[in-house]
Amino acid sequence: MENEYPTLHGIGNMKMEKHPIPALGPHDVLLKMSKVGICGSDLALVYKGRQGDFVPPFPMGLCHEASGVVVQCGPKVKHLEVGDKVAVEPGGPCRVCSFCKSGKYNNCPDACFHAGPSPIPGCLARYFKHTADLCFKLPDNVSLEEGAIIEPLSVGIHACRRANVTLGSSVLICGAGPVGLVCLLSAKAMGATNILVTDIRQNRLQTAKKMGANDTLLVKTETPEDLAKKVAEVIGCQPEITLECSGAESSIRTGIFATRSSGTVVLVGIGNPEVKLPIVNAAVREVDIKGVYRYIDYYPIAIDMIAKGLVDVKPLITHTFAFEDYKKAFELCKTAEDGVIKCMISCD
Amino acid sequence: MENEYPTLHGIGNMKMEKHPIPALGPHDVLLKMSKVGICGSDLALVYKGRQGDFVPPFPMGLCHEASGVVVQCGPKVKHLEVGDKVAVEPGGPCRVCSFCKSGKYNNCPDACFHAGPSPIPGCLARYFKHTADLCFKLPDNVSLEEGAIIEPLSVGIHACRRANVTLGSSVLICGAGPVGLVCLLSAKAMGATNILVTDIRQNRLQTAKKMGANDTLLVKTETPEDLAKKVAEVIGCQPEITLECSGAESSIRTGIFATRSSGTVVLVGIGNPEVKLPIVNAAVREVDIKGVYRYIDYYPIAIDMIAKGLVDVKPLITHTFAFEDYKKAFELCKTAEDGVIKCMISCD
Amino acid sequence: MENEYPTLHGIGNMKMEKHPIPALGPHDVLLKMSKVGICGSDLALVYKGRQGDFVPPFPMGLCHEASGVVVQCGPKVKHLEVGDKVAVEPGGPCRVCSFCKSGKYNNCPDACFHAGPSPIPGCLARYFKHTADLCFKLPDNVSLEEGAIIEPLSVGIHACRRANVTLGSSVLICGAGPVGLVCLLSAKAMGATNILVTDIRQNRLQTAKKMGANDTLLVKTETPEDLAKKVAEVIGCQPEITLECSGAESSIRTGIFATRSSGTVVLVGIGNPEVKLPIVNAAVREVDIKGVYRYIDYYPIAIDMIAKGLVDVKPLITHTFAFEDYKKAFELCKTAEDGVIKCMISCD
Amino acid sequence: MENEYPTLHGIGNMKMEKHPIPALGPHDVLLKMSKVGICGSDLALVYKGRQGDFVPPFPMGLCHEASGVVVQCGPKVKHLEVGDKVAVEPGGPCRVCSFCKSGKYNNCPDACFHAGPSPIPGCLARYFKHTADLCFKLPDNVSLEEGAIIEPLSVGIHACRRANVTLGSSVLICGAGPVGLVCLLSAKAMGATNILVTDIRQNRLQTAKKMGANDTLLVKTETPEDLAKKVAEVIGCQPEITLECSGAESSIRTGIFATRSSGTVVLVGIGNPEVKLPIVNAAVREVDIKGVYRYIDYYPIAIDMIAKGLVDVKPLITHTFAFEDYKKAFELCKTAEDGVIKCMISCD
Repeated sequence: MENEYPTLHGIGNMKMEKHPIPALGPHDVLLKMSKVGICGSDLALVYKGRQGDFVPPFPMGLCHEASGVVVQCGPKVKHLEVGDKVAVEPGGPCRVCSFCKSGKYNNCPDACFHAGPSPIPGCLARYFKHTADLCFKLPDNVSLEEGAIIEPLSVGIHACRRANVTLGSSVLICGAGPVGLVCLLSAKAMGATNILVTDIRQNRLQTAKKMGANDTLLVKTETPEDLAKKVAEVIGCQPEITLECSGAESSIRTGIFATRSSGTVVLVGIGNPEVKLPIVNAAVREVDIKGVYRYIDYYPIAIDMIAKGLVDVKPLITHTFAFEDYKKAFELCKTAEDGVIKCMISCD
Repeated sequence: MENEYPTLHGIGNMKMEKHPIPALGPHDVLLKMSKVGICGSDLALVYKGRQGDFVPPFPMGLCHEASGVVVQCGPKVKHLEVGDKVAVEPGGPCRVCSFCKSGKYNNCPDACFHAGPSPIPGCLARYFKHTADLCFKLPDNVSLEEGAIIEPLSVGIHACRRANVTLGSSVLICGAGPVGLVCLLSAKAMGATNILVTDIRQNRLQTAKKMGANDTLLVKTETPEDLAKKVAEVIGCQPEITLECSGAESSIRTGIFATRSSGTVVLVGIGNPEVKLPIVNAAVREVDIKGVYRYIDYYPIAIDMIAKGLVDVKPLITHTFAFEDYKKAFELCKTAEDGVIKCMISCD
Repeated sequence: MENEYPTLHGIGNMKMEKHPIPALGPHDVLLKMSKVGICGSDLALVYKGRQGDFVPPFPMGLCHEASGVVVQCGPKVKHLEVGDKVAVEPGGPCRVCSFCKSGKYNNCPDACFHAGPSPIPGCLARYFKHTADLCFKLPDNVSLEEGAIIEPLSVGIHACRRANVTLGSSVLICGAGPVGLVCLLSAKAMGATNILVTDIRQNRLQTAKKMGANDTLLVKTETPEDLAKKVAEVIGCQPEITLECSGAESSIRTGIFATRSSGTVVLVGIGNPEVKLPIVNAAVREVDIKGVYRYIDYYPIAIDMIAKGLVDVKPLITHTFAFEDYKKAFELCKTAEDGVIKCMISCD
Repeated sequence: MENEYPTLHGIGNMKMEKHPIPALGPHDVLLKMSKVGICGSDLALVYKGRQGDFVPPFPMGLCHEASGVVVQCGPKVKHLEVGDKVAVEPGGPCRVCSFCKSGKYNNCPDACFHAGPSPIPGCLARYFKHTADLCFKLPDNVSLEEGAIIEPLSVGIHACRRANVTLGSSVLICGAGPVGLVCLLSAKAMGATNILVTDIRQNRLQTAKKMGANDTLLVKTETPEDLAKKVAEVIGCQPEITLECSGAESSIRTGIFATRSSGTVVLVGIGNPEVKLPIVNAAVREVDIKGVYRYIDYYPIAIDMIAKGLVDVKPLITHTFAFEDYKKAFELCKTAEDGVIKCMISCD
C-alpha cells in the first residue's frame, strides 16, 4: 500500500507526492482518510510560508482538520476496530512533562502537531498513521464531514472554557469567520443567553444570526470605545466575556472596553505580534486577558454535542472538493469570497 | 390597605388572617402578589410541623415560590417601578458576614427566609413588602406563572453549579419530582449531553423524558450496586455527576456507586438525617459528596433562561387554584397524586 | 467632640481643618484614629491632583491605610466594644449589586472609598466614623502600627490570590517598593518556594532579600527578552507567576516573556494607561494577564498572618511622624529617598 | 547483576528472594535503592493480607515510599544521569485515558502501582527499574532519608489541595499519625494560620505540637457533637477544613459537625467501608465530603518544600533498620509502640 498526499515545498508551491506507509506501532492505527478541512493556519503556511512566529521546515505535509476510517489496528489497540469512522486529534503530546501530567498538554513544549515536516504527511493524505488514543470513534449519526469539524469545534470549546462561559453568560464574539462561528456554537451549547457577534461583513453576520447569535453588529469605522458602548446598548448590559476571533488590534481594544468588570477577554484570533492596549482600563476593572492554544481532550465532548443535537455544524461546510482538486480548494479559501466558511477536501 | 394571608398555627391548622401592611423602608417595594407555588418544604411544615431539623415558631406565614406586581416603591429604589412584574427571591442575608462578603450568602447564619413567623407573611399573601434588590423584573415574554418558578429553577441551577455540570457532562438524576425536573432543565441548559433520570413512578419518568432526559430508568427493587451498573449500561459510561433529588438512603448509595471516579454526587433531596454510606468507595475514587442550600444570585440567569427559550418550565405547572382555595391546593399536593408536579395559587 | 484633619484643596494645597463629628448610625462605630500610612496613590492625589484616570472633587480628605481605637459603638454593633484596637477597611460597597452578591465587591461600581470628598474625612483624622463590619479587631499581639499595614498587605494577598500562588509556586516580582514587598510577604506565606525580586535600586533589593526573597536581580538596561532569560537562569526555570509591581511598560513586557506557558502575569503596579505588549507571545502560550483592584474580605487573614507570625511587616515601616507634621511625611515620601518604604503618621 | 528483595507470599509470610534484573527500556532508569519507608498500607497487606477492598495476588513485592541512586539510564533519558539521587513516584498511569489527559492520573483505572505482583519487586529491593519521568532528582541539600518521605508528603499535599487549604485557613486534623503529620506540615506550608490536631494518644499530640500545630486536643470519650464544640472553642471559630486522618466513623462524624458551613471534610484515613453519617447536617450547610487517592505530580513541590526549608520532615523518621532486618522493621511498626512514627529500611 502506498500513500499519496500534497506536499508544500515553499510559498505557494504544493505538489502531489507518493510515499510508502510506515509500519504501525502496537498502539497505532492506520486510517484511510476521508474529509479534511482547510484552516486559516494552512492558508498562512501555503501562501505566506509561515504562521505567526512559526516558520515550518519545507517540505511539509498539509492540514489537520480531519476524519477517516480505520483500516488497520496495532495489536494493543482496544477501543477501535477496522471500519470505525474516527475524528483525528492531530497532535502528539510528550505525556511526561509537567504540562502533560497536569491536564494542560496543549502547552507541552515537546508536542508535535500534524501537519509535520515531510515525509510525515499532514492529515490531507490518502492514509494517515496515528496514535489510537487520539482517534475518536464517531457514532452512527455523526458523519465524516462532521468528523472533520471536530477539530475547529474543539477550539471553540476551549475558548469558551477558558472564558468560563456558562449558563446565563453574556458574550461578545468579535469576528464571524469559522473561528467565531465555532465559538458561537460552543457558547450557545454551554448556556450563554446573550451572544452578540460583530464583523465587518454583513453576510457573515447573517450566517451568525442563523447559527444562533442573539444579536449582530456590523462594524464600520467606530472607535473601540464607541463600539464598546454600542455593544452594551444592543445587549442591554456589558458582556462579561469577549471572545476575540479577528486578531485585529482595534478589536482587542474593543473587547477590553466592552467587557464588564471582573470579566474575561479571550484572544482566539491571532494577528500582529505586538499591539497597543488600554491595559490600565483592563487592570483596574479586573478584566482578564487570556489566550488559547488549540484544545485539550475535548473531542469526546465535541462529538457528543453533534450526536445529541446540541449543535448543527453543517452550515459551516460551504464547499467540498475532490482530493485531486485540492489546489482549487486552497485558492477558493484564499479569496475568502463571500459565502466561503469552511472548505472540505474528500480524500476518498 | 390591608393584607390578607393564610397563617399556620400548628400541624394542619391553617386559617386566613388580616393584618395591616407595614410602612416601606427607602429600599423596599410593596408587591401585589400574583402566583405562588407550593414546595415540598411547605407541605412538611403544614402537615408535619417541621422540615428536617427546623421547627418553626407558630403562627407563621406560608410559601416562598412567588411572583408579584410592584404597587409601591421606597424613595431609593431605582431599578423597579410601579407596574413591573417581578419574581421574588424570598430571603434576606445579613450582607456583612464573611459568607455574604464572599458570595456564599445562602450559607449566612443570620439570613432570614420567607415564609417567616407571623405577623410577617409568607409569600402566599395579598401583599408582600420586600427589599427591592431581591425582586427581579420579568421581561414581557416571561409570565407571572413562570415568575413563580424562578425560585425552584434557581435550586436546579445551584445544584448543577455545585456539581460543575458543563458541556458534555453525563448526569444521573435520581428522582423525577419537581426538584429533579428543575435539575434536569438546568443540566440540559448547561450543555449536559447525557442525562439519565430515575424514579419509582413511570408517569414521572414520562414527564422527564418529555422535558429532555436522554434516558429514564424505572427503579424497582434493585440493590444500589445493581442499579449503578444498570445506569452505566444505559448511559454507556459511568456518569461523572449524580444529582440526588429523592433524599432516600438507597438512592444516595446508588449515586456513590454509580458516579465515575473524580466525579460528584450532589445531595439535593433531603431525607433521613442519618444515613449509612459506602464512604471508602467514594473516598478512594475521589467521588465528592456535596449538599446544596437554596441558591445564590441566580434569579437573573433563571429569568434569562426562560426569556431566551433555553427552557420551557410550563410543563411543571400542572394545577392552579384560587387564593381562597389554598387549602385544596395543599391537599392535592399532599396526596401527590399522579400527575401533580407543581401547584400554583393565584393571589390576584 | 470635634474632628480635625488635613484637607486637600488642590495640587499640593493641604490645610488642617476642623469639622463636627456626625452622629453614628446603628451599625457604625466612631474611631479615635491611631496610625495612618501614606500610599503611592495619596502622593499622586496630593502632588499631581489625580491618580490615573481618577480626578477627585476638591476639597477632599486624605489617606486610607489606617488603624484606630473604638470610642463609641452604634446600638446594633455586636463584635466590637469601646477600647478595641481595629484595622480599618476603607471602603463601602453597595452590597446589593451582582458584584457584591458574588463575592467581588471590590469591583462594585457604586462603592465609595475613603479618603472621600470633604467634609467626609479620609482616614488621616483625629476621628473617623465607619461601618462596624469594616473595622477588624486586632488581637493583643498585633500593634496599631501593624494594624495600619493590613490595608496594603491585603493588596498583596489579593494579587497572590489572583495569581493562584500556592505551595511550590515560582514567582517573579517586578519592583521592590511597598507594593512589591507586601506581594513578597504574601507569596512567601502562601508557600511559594522560589521568589525572585527585581528592581532598579540595589538597596531595595537588599530589603527584599532580608524579607524573604530567594533571589534578587538588579535591572539595568537589558531588553525585556534578555531580562526574561536572566530570570529563568537565576530561578532555574521559568516562573509560573509574575507579579508586576512597577507599572512600567518594559516590566510588563518582561513579565510576559518571563512567565511559563499557562502561567499568569498580575498587574499590580499602575503606570501608563496604554502600553505596547507582545500579545501573541502571551496568547499562544496561554499566559494570562490579570489586574487587581484593591482586595476583598482579606483583613481577617492579614491580621491572622501577623498574629500567628507568618509575616513580619515591621521592616516595612521606616518612618513615623506626628499628626501635626503630616506635611513632612508627605514630603519625605515624595522624595522617595533611599530607605523610605512606608511612612506612618501618628494621629494620637 | 542480580536483584534481591523480600516477597510476601501470604499473611505474615515474607521471605527474601533473588531475581534477575530485567533489561531497561529507552525511557527507563535502574536505581540502586537507598531508603524505603513502611506505610500503613504495607502493614495491612503483610498482616491482614488485604488493604481495604484490595486483595493482592501473592506473591508480591513490598513498599512504595522510597529513594535511590541512578546506576543506569535508558538511551532516551535526558533529565537524569548516573549518580543522581532520586525520589521514586511508585506508580504507572496509562497516560492515554481521560483521567490521565485531564491531570487526574491518580484516578486512572489502568494505573499500576508498586509494590506489585512478583516477580516485579516493590520499592523495598536492592535494585528497582522505573520509568525515568517518575524519578525525581534530589538537590544536594535533600537527603535520601528525606527522599523517601516525598511519597507520604505528597499525600499530605494532595489532601490539602483537595481541601483548598490556603493562607489563613483554619484546619482540624483528626489523627496525629504519619498521615496526620504530613497533612500538618503541608497545611502549615500553604499558610494555614490555625491548625488544631486531635488524637487519642498524648505523645502523638506532643509531636504534632512540635511540628507546628497551633493547638492540640486529646480525644477521650466525647460524642462527636461535643468534640466538635470543643474544637470550635479551642480554635475560636469553626474550622473551614477538616482533614480526617484516622478513618474512624466517630472521627468522620466529628469532622462534619465541626466544619464551618461551606467548608470541606477530606477523608484521608481509610477505615470501615460503611459508616453512618449525619448527611443532612453536612448537606444543608454545604460541607463537602471529599476523598483522596494518592497524589498527582507533586514530587517536585514536595522536594522543593524540603530544599527551601518550608518543612522539616526529619522528626517523622524515628527508626531505621538494615535491609536484612526488614522483618524487625515491620514488627516494630505493627506494635505501633509509642514513639514510632515512620520506620525506614536502608537498602544500601
